[in-house]
Amino acid sequence: MSSSITCSGSIALDTTRTPFKTVENVLGGAVSYFSISASFFSKVYVTGIVGNDFPQEYWDLLAKRSDVNGIQKKEGKTFHYDCTYSFDFYHRHTNKTDLNVLADFKPEVTEEAKQSEFVYLATMPPASQRDVLKQVITKKLSFMDTIEFYIENYKSDLLETISMVDGIVLNDAEARKLTDETNLVKCINKIAELGPKIIILKKGEHGCLLYYEKKIYPFPAFPLENIVDPNGAGDSFAGGFIGTLSKLDASNPTIGQLKTAIGYATVMGSLAVSDFSVEGLVNTNIQKIDQQFSQYQELLRL
Amino acid sequence: MSSSITCSGSIALDTTRTPFKTVENVLGGAVSYFSISASFFSKVYVTGIVGNDFPQEYWDLLAKRSDVNGIQKKEGKTFHYDCTYSFDFYHRHTNKTDLNVLADFKPEVTEEAKQSEFVYLATMPPASQRDVLKQVITKKLSFMDTIEFYIENYKSDLLETISMVDGIVLNDAEARKLTDETNLVKCINKIAELGPKIIILKKGEHGCLLYYEKKIYPFPAFPLENIVDPNGAGDSFAGGFIGTLSKLDASNPTIGQLKTAIGYATVMGSLAVSDFSVEGLVNTNIQKIDQQFSQYQELLRL
Repeated sequence: MSSSITCSGSIALDTTRTPFKTVENVLGGAVSYFSISASFFSKVYVTGIVGNDFPQEYWDLLAKRSDVNGIQKKEGKTFHYDCTYSFDFYHRHTNKTDLNVLADFKPEVTEEAKQSEFVYLATMPPASQRDVLKQVITKKLSFMDTIEFYIENYKSDLLETISMVDGIVLNDAEARKLTDETNLVKCINKIAELGPKIIILKKGEHGCLLYYEKKIYPFPAFPLENIVDPNGAGDSFAGGFIGTLSKLDASNPTIGQLKTAIGYATVMGSLAVSDFSVEGLVNTNIQKIDQQFSQYQELLRL
Repeated sequence: MSSSITCSGSIALDTTRTPFKTVENVLGGAVSYFSISASFFSKVYVTGIVGNDFPQEYWDLLAKRSDVNGIQKKEGKTFHYDCTYSFDFYHRHTNKTDLNVLADFKPEVTEEAKQSEFVYLATMPPASQRDVLKQVITKKLSFMDTIEFYIENYKSDLLETISMVDGIVLNDAEARKLTDETNLVKCINKIAELGPKIIILKKGEHGCLLYYEKKIYPFPAFPLENIVDPNGAGDSFAGGFIGTLSKLDASNPTIGQLKTAIGYATVMGSLAVSDFSVEGLVNTNIQKIDQQFSQYQELLRL
């Protein structure tokens, strides 16, 4: 019997402005990227919400790859995120965040999704994250993400959620804000004291650090010459990571399994940034993904 | 017959002010770090200059590990470098650069040092680098470093030197300044057009990128919680890299040999920052270095 993943978070229509091109109302949102990425490796149940403006083609795209019975359709507009990237993609400016139907989102986990072994709580209000977590009664390994907004404005609420998950995936800026430390090793050690036994600190183009059993393992990213759209890289990375753990049935993972999962996460993150929206993820297949994983192994072989 | 390395560059007395401690007039300078680091792996000939204030104990320290017959002793003061690091070590402020005897340094390569297979041209005026390079008549593989000062003020002169070496070791800020590109892959591709067939782009705590035969290989650094003194990390890294190539007699290196050399370079860089001045390098031995190399291999094993 293979494992499954229940995930929850935002589904968005993105307007993304890069130095080279602007795309409007394309499929975005943390759980869209996560679920498509993870679907290459595992059965995925999606919990989320969209408005009645959500295009059928995006619905079909999500439904083709994951179980979407946990996505509510509500009267109103879908969450809309509008941002502009700097000429070198090092800075993202948020132009507009229209929560719309997401503002009153009460996650409803379907009966089947309550039976998953793996849980991914993408960025949401910390209380909603706990709500989903508690509903997945058979969970064995749970992960969460967050953003600076919740670290700043919902700190104690967020700490409660952090204390309940097995793992956390966050970026360097978030880790520093959460711990008031600059040195990333010190950040990780402080986060470990908050509860999570697995910590992944993402550093964008510089790869990531994996914490497990009091050791820190550094991993580089693929050197990329052309970045098209950085949106969703982190959630696609998380999808490759948790997807691989689910595929391996690794609810009590060994360090070897975690490293393999990081390798696939790195592949999925690089695919996500290679095209706009989720295009880099949907225009691939598991054979190509395996091939890129082998290339990554080869790059690192010492 | 094993290979040897001829290196040339600054020998300094450093005053280093960190948030935790200040040390004054300690042994520093690019070629001090490089030669001590490389001496664990290979015979090293040092070309440099010191004033008559240079402490005997530092002379003995350099002489114990390398051939110092190419170090001139001149009337006057040794090059002095004074800097302050920010609380998190992310920023270095130069308080004073007294070139002293280094101002009129004319490198003189000894007869024995002219017979080396490997050359390392640490940061110097580009014309002095070419001067040393030409004197090493049996050279098979040469590397150089530079700093932003020469990129800004001696660009065409610097490009001439770059066109003459086999390899270049520089950091991300220098690579960007040299090429007017932001993306590091683009930086590397532009530098490759200038001549070097081996490029190492150092990213400090984020590791480095190795370019060889049109491919780019990413390497992480050791995650370090405690950094004591970042001075000399880059030259110690270069010492581990070129020292290992010399030890392997790899004047026409395979990618496997280059990767091994990067592993040892990473170890030597992390040792350099673990204590003030060259203390982190001198208080180790090849057994410990080999052990740390194995740890690095283990961290990366996927």
